[in-house]
Amino acid sequence: MANEKSSYSLNSKVVSDTTHELLHKRGVTILEIAELVMFLQKKYYPNLTMEECVHNVEQVLTKREVQNAVITGIQLDILAEEGKLLSPLQEMMVNDEGLYGVDEILAFSIVNVYGSIGFTNYGYVDKLKPGVLERLNDKSDGHVHTFLDDIVGAIAAAASSRIAHRKQAEREQVAVNLGIEIDQLNDGASPE
Amino acid sequence: MANEKSSYSLNSKVVSDTTHELLHKRGVTILEIAELVMFLQKKYYPNLTMEECVHNVEQVLTKREVQNAVITGIQLDILAEEGKLLSPLQEMMVNDEGLYGVDEILAFSIVNVYGSIGFTNYGYVDKLKPGVLERLNDKSDGHVHTFLDDIVGAIAAAASSRIAHRKQAEREQVAVNLGIEIDQLNDGASPE
Amino acid sequence: MANEKSSYSLNSKVVSDTTHELLHKRGVTILEIAELVMFLQKKYYPNLTMEECVHNVEQVLTKREVQNAVITGIQLDILAEEGKLLSPLQEMMVNDEGLYGVDEILAFSIVNVYGSIGFTNYGYVDKLKPGVLERLNDKSDGHVHTFLDDIVGAIAAAASSRIAHRKQAEREQVAVNLGIEIDQLNDGASPE
Amino acid sequence: MANEKSSYSLNSKVVSDTTHELLHKRGVTILEIAELVMFLQKKYYPNLTMEECVHNVEQVLTKREVQNAVITGIQLDILAEEGKLLSPLQEMMVNDEGLYGVDEILAFSIVNVYGSIGFTNYGYVDKLKPGVLERLNDKSDGHVHTFLDDIVGAIAAAASSRIAHRKQAEREQVAVNLGIEIDQLNDGASPE
Repeated sequence: MANEKSSYSLNSKVVSDTTHELLHKRGVTILEIAELVMFLQKKYYPNLTMEECVHNVEQVLTKREVQNAVITGIQLDILAEEGKLLSPLQEMMVNDEGLYGVDEILAFSIVNVYGSIGFTNYGYVDKLKPGVLERLNDKSDGHVHTFLDDIVGAIAAAASSRIAHRKQAEREQVAVNLGIEIDQLNDGASPE
Repeated sequence: MANEKSSYSLNSKVVSDTTHELLHKRGVTILEIAELVMFLQKKYYPNLTMEECVHNVEQVLTKREVQNAVITGIQLDILAEEGKLLSPLQEMMVNDEGLYGVDEILAFSIVNVYGSIGFTNYGYVDKLKPGVLERLNDKSDGHVHTFLDDIVGAIAAAASSRIAHRKQAEREQVAVNLGIEIDQLNDGASPE
Repeated sequence: MANEKSSYSLNSKVVSDTTHELLHKRGVTILEIAELVMFLQKKYYPNLTMEECVHNVEQVLTKREVQNAVITGIQLDILAEEGKLLSPLQEMMVNDEGLYGVDEILAFSIVNVYGSIGFTNYGYVDKLKPGVLERLNDKSDGHVHTFLDDIVGAIAAAASSRIAHRKQAEREQVAVNLGIEIDQLNDGASPE
Repeated sequence: MANEKSSYSLNSKVVSDTTHELLHKRGVTILEIAELVMFLQKKYYPNLTMEECVHNVEQVLTKREVQNAVITGIQLDILAEEGKLLSPLQEMMVNDEGLYGVDEILAFSIVNVYGSIGFTNYGYVDKLKPGVLERLNDKSDGHVHTFLDDIVGAIAAAASSRIAHRKQAEREQVAVNLGIEIDQLNDGASPE
């Protein structure tokens, strides 16, 4: 044990790879998360492409805070599925107990990675359960996704926040390149 | 100034009264917030009454953390409306800038009063803007409600969390009074 | 499985009892947590008694949000100790990896129960590691307390916040009973 | 008003410049914040230079979430100093009321920018008040820094988190460049 500890060193690549492997193993694809992003953002950015959504989901997944939450949450889901948790945590997890709340807490550490502007998007998809979230929330097949459904919604919300920040940066860069004042950019309209 | 400080003492009743006065002054009634609670909770508790919703909103408003967020947020709204903030905070507030995010941060300190289970409800009403939230979000009348719309949604979400906790407690109390095991309460169904 | 789910019903007493049992099983007493509270608060309230500290810790432990975080965190500690987590979560947990951060996230859901005023106290004891925290943080005995040390510090910080709120309420009640203005209470001094 | 709104467009450079101007105007230098970072991190990284600390503080200040919190907090401090807030917010701000807590809430949105690992550092400096924090917390000169002292501590804590993440990345890069296994890097020591 002492030796195990003395030779420990965090390997960030392993943490990152494991994040992707666990999502894959639990049946969630990057594309499905990107579809949630599109669902959330298309009305604000009509030209948004699936490629951009995929790219932004992948960028969210490079964040260590996100990786740690994903790995910890999926680990708890797996252990619950295998019946290896202590009672009453085991029962709360298997039944996705509404008053548990630790799943929301981990989800929020993910959303927060791009700031508070993502809170609304998280709550919205978590309530509507579009796309992959509906499947994850279906408890009829014996799988436990108590953490994963919130985690996936949170990744989509964080990616949406990232897009909002990037689109603003792009817009301001266009203004700089055109040599115009940023406040003339808006709607083209105002004559004053 | 020194005297002002030396004689300072927090008066909780004044803080509480001011919270209610500011909500009233900004055109929001307890009843309207209670309607948001009903909107969020009626499908889970079909027998929920408006009286219960009003009561739970009032209880949320007794929390100091909530009062401080309400007072601070409305103060910023009022100052923005009067044009008294420094640029560019003034412009971000007047235009409810999507990348600002401090309004969501204050809202979350309110939701959190009854724990993380309220995050979803907050995001949901903040997106859908039912009832009073639609009016607060209408920027055509010159009023600035950048903080208030998030605050009202957050109070409704916190009241919903409080109801969820209370309903569970009531349900368990019924079981105790009937002298039955709590896990026999559920749906009456299971024969084992 | 279907039957297991259909007969599920949250039993709050079991959740509460398990919280206390797990703290006891992991070697932490209420008294030790109360000593942290005394360490944090004695300079603000010289007359604070250990009985009050114990009472406030017990009150913090009645909160469901706290119970859920305690149970989940200790569960992960135990599984890490038994070597039952997936790599690299297993190694991060055993070595209390500084960049992990999920332990702090759960701790914060505890501190938050009495609002943001407890954040400072949490950080302070988490850094200084007085009393029981020093023992929990000692990794030489093969025990894993990656979550528990943060959880115990967070419970002490939350209890400190609770005391701060109560002391203010007591002080205002004294003023009411004496029939004096609350702002005359302060230091007796100001002549105006 | 309608025209003012229609021509609005967020100018990120103005937000960033204002953040630096307000810190300067309120008497806080980047160097002083960097000294807090050094205070927090020197025992973990003995070779850490002041240049690195300054650089990391500057990087934290490029984050929009941080800028919004700095601008909003300092705005409230200034208004309190000018006596322009509504009662009782005015008195709570001037007296840095311990039960207010909105200052801690804004501080946490800053700390969070590099994740939960910074919570401890924030609480620690907020309690000890080293360097610039002692001066900001001195209420004898008529200035109000109710938000600013927490904000400065939070920027230092966030910069410390950023350093921790970067140092880990550097360490792993060294291992990659040397073509060795990452877990052989640790302390050079272990013979197995």
